[in-house]
Amino acid sequence: MSKGAATRERILDQAVELTSLVGLEGLSIGGLAKATEMSKSGLFAHFASKKGLQLRVIETARARFIEAVVSPALRRPRGELRLRALFENWLEWEKERTTGGCPFVAAAHEMDDRPGPVRDALVASQRDWIDTLATAARIAVEEGHLARDLDVRQLAYDVYGLFLAYHLYHRLLLDPEAARRARAGFERLLDASR
Amino acid sequence: MSKGAATRERILDQAVELTSLVGLEGLSIGGLAKATEMSKSGLFAHFASKKGLQLRVIETARARFIEAVVSPALRRPRGELRLRALFENWLEWEKERTTGGCPFVAAAHEMDDRPGPVRDALVASQRDWIDTLATAARIAVEEGHLARDLDVRQLAYDVYGLFLAYHLYHRLLLDPEAARRARAGFERLLDASR
Repeated sequence: MSKGAATRERILDQAVELTSLVGLEGLSIGGLAKATEMSKSGLFAHFASKKGLQLRVIETARARFIEAVVSPALRRPRGELRLRALFENWLEWEKERTTGGCPFVAAAHEMDDRPGPVRDALVASQRDWIDTLATAARIAVEEGHLARDLDVRQLAYDVYGLFLAYHLYHRLLLDPEAARRARAGFERLLDASR
Repeated sequence: MSKGAATRERILDQAVELTSLVGLEGLSIGGLAKATEMSKSGLFAHFASKKGLQLRVIETARARFIEAVVSPALRRPRGELRLRALFENWLEWEKERTTGGCPFVAAAHEMDDRPGPVRDALVASQRDWIDTLATAARIAVEEGHLARDLDVRQLAYDVYGLFLAYHLYHRLLLDPEAARRARAGFERLLDASR
């Protein structure tokens, strides 16, 4: 990696971190300059516009998500264990990777009313993730761990709901039971899917 | 209601609407002036500060929520029917009442990292709502509609998750199946709770 590319990566990591706190709209070249202790003009050399920065943040958050959540789960055995790993890694991601929680959740509610390439990139990232969950569930069906007639896209929806409730209970309500509730919901869901 | 009070109510309704689109942080006296076609100074006469405005918006959204979601459900028979009404009215609320979806969801992810009275008011509103859901589930247990050993707070958590997934699928992903998925998840949840 060239020195310029490495600097860019470091800036983007901080931009993802900042997004988890202030959202994609709250993200500004000025705010990022403060967080990275770089000059605004230095940052403009890397990202021509706020929109360009937002797009690169989504791309970076996606890469980090795959690295932290998806890839380790793909190394687990096919079936229920892999599905469990995806869910557990997802909870970890919310808790450990960024100060302000999941940057995708922070962005989702800002972007839903703002058509354009940033929204499109966010939607694509969420569709990919839902497909990953549904595929893992389908493999668990094929392996005989879950019921033959399971609606795997419904399972993906329900699991997404458990995660979003976890995010709310943990981040907004500061509920110490948040993770326990998320896991209990997931167990109930698997039990009902066998 | 005095003329001043009526004007204030009308402004607050528009402020709730605007919050559903741009969030509580995105809400500004300037933006509200544009939406209501009033002067900034006229608005300052009603709301001394942005924080004051945000607090009144949460209060107003709460009152509208009770009016649209909670009160009609309380007129339904105790038990499963009432719990169902709460969920159905909640989905309606997201779809019908504001252009940008649920203002509480819009605010939740902005406010989770911003301590202060606005966050406190939002948390109180969400705790009240979760209590309402859990109480409705407890009544359904007492009426013999749901299982004696049901963890009613877990049910409230799971139902909240279904709603948040609905919000994401409907608003961000524009998934035409969003409402069907939400209802299917709710039915599965009730079936597992009998």
